[in-house]
Amino acid sequence: MKFARHGSRGAEKPIVCDADGRWRDLTPVAGDVTPDVLTRPESEFGLESLPVVTRLERFGPPLAGVGKIVCIGLNYRDHAEETGAVPPAEPIVFLKAPDTIVGPDDDVLIPRGSRKTDWEVELALVIGAKARYLDGPESALACVAGYTISNDVSEREFQLERGGQWDKGKNCETFNPLGPWILTADEVPDPQKLDLRLWVNGQVRQDGTTADMIFNVAYLVWHLSQFMVLNPGDVINTGTPAGVALGSPGLPYLRAGDVVELEIDGLGRQRQNFKAAH
Amino acid sequence: MKFARHGSRGAEKPIVCDADGRWRDLTPVAGDVTPDVLTRPESEFGLESLPVVTRLERFGPPLAGVGKIVCIGLNYRDHAEETGAVPPAEPIVFLKAPDTIVGPDDDVLIPRGSRKTDWEVELALVIGAKARYLDGPESALACVAGYTISNDVSEREFQLERGGQWDKGKNCETFNPLGPWILTADEVPDPQKLDLRLWVNGQVRQDGTTADMIFNVAYLVWHLSQFMVLNPGDVINTGTPAGVALGSPGLPYLRAGDVVELEIDGLGRQRQNFKAAH
Repeated sequence: MKFARHGSRGAEKPIVCDADGRWRDLTPVAGDVTPDVLTRPESEFGLESLPVVTRLERFGPPLAGVGKIVCIGLNYRDHAEETGAVPPAEPIVFLKAPDTIVGPDDDVLIPRGSRKTDWEVELALVIGAKARYLDGPESALACVAGYTISNDVSEREFQLERGGQWDKGKNCETFNPLGPWILTADEVPDPQKLDLRLWVNGQVRQDGTTADMIFNVAYLVWHLSQFMVLNPGDVINTGTPAGVALGSPGLPYLRAGDVVELEIDGLGRQRQNFKAAH
Repeated sequence: MKFARHGSRGAEKPIVCDADGRWRDLTPVAGDVTPDVLTRPESEFGLESLPVVTRLERFGPPLAGVGKIVCIGLNYRDHAEETGAVPPAEPIVFLKAPDTIVGPDDDVLIPRGSRKTDWEVELALVIGAKARYLDGPESALACVAGYTISNDVSEREFQLERGGQWDKGKNCETFNPLGPWILTADEVPDPQKLDLRLWVNGQVRQDGTTADMIFNVAYLVWHLSQFMVLNPGDVINTGTPAGVALGSPGLPYLRAGDVVELEIDGLGRQRQNFKAAH
């Protein structure tokens, strides 16, 4: 199933997509797209009896009540190489705060003083069941409720040249467009066979596949569960393939007026106008 | 005013301390200790008419609805020196997820495989008003609603030897005891004049003063507001003075059975039993 939320910012309503591709109003059976909704069996929703949405509004972030956003750094070999980094021996972990999340087509603000605002198309997973000290990667995918697209927007100077930890360049206002929808895990038979693409002003900049992850989704969830508890509603940004500005000498960083578009197979498309933070 | 929450885990009720030091039930006038409660004028509460709490239960985390926890690294010169680090030129920023928060006297779990679980007494601030691109440190304290104690528990091997970013050693289950109470900012005339102390099994290990911060509270809030938006309910852990195990060769890291106590002037006292994570 595909779950999304539409409406004005802060007043989004939950919707669900039926077998014919029509969005239907979920409010008669669920107050919002919360983690428990993602793991309910389809038969419980009575999809065909829900009202069809006649006028689709702005897509908001597809999940209400995100707990934490755990991000994986340098998880594609080609991206690690382009940034001059040694491919990591184990996953590099950092956090974004949920208040950085905006809708998939919302404006993204370039921070004041920024010279190196960069893009990162990423496969994001939504946790549906608690993951704590999992025995191994083979039990990890059962904890994933679904998948969506994340733009892990990054200010490289803040991240790498301003005091030691990446979080400083990862948590700027509006730096995590998420959505447009969550595709439940049962409809993603192999999360390592998804193509990811990103364009800046219509020029393709990233064109990768999740097959090239150094640590795959199951490994990441298992690994993280050894260091922290993953709870329903947590989001994991699984890293970005090659093609970011940081790794492409001569390619300009983002400026006000730029348009970034992102796409992952089956997960839809995002489109953001980048503007200056006033 | 002092605000706290007491009761069993997940079912805490809000309480407030009156002029005579008696805790009173806040539920007749506020559903919980939320950020807006911290900034309401005392006269609105009618303290003297609230029921006195006759049986004080377990203290829970003193704030409901924590947004994000922003942590400052190496913010005391003596602590930077003891860890062999150069005192930072600007604040080092990392994040903890709010799901690491436990009550001030709750058990803390030593992660499986941990050999270097360490303690850090810290002054924590609670944001009461949005801070975004503040003009300067002089306007920053107006955004602080109150203060409390944080034990920024850290696994040093996970933090420093396991893949590059500190967050991996900072977000283990139960790694952020918070409380016992929030003292509102109006009762803390100078946050740079507070003594902090920490004991392990009765032995004093940290004995510092917030006067020794490299970047003071006002500077931190202003600085952070240039990189992220601070929202009401966000917590800032402002760094720890010298005396942690990492900086004291020969001093053992924490083991199951150890007891850690923390104290800051006017903010009360914490006491945690450290246990193995099963």
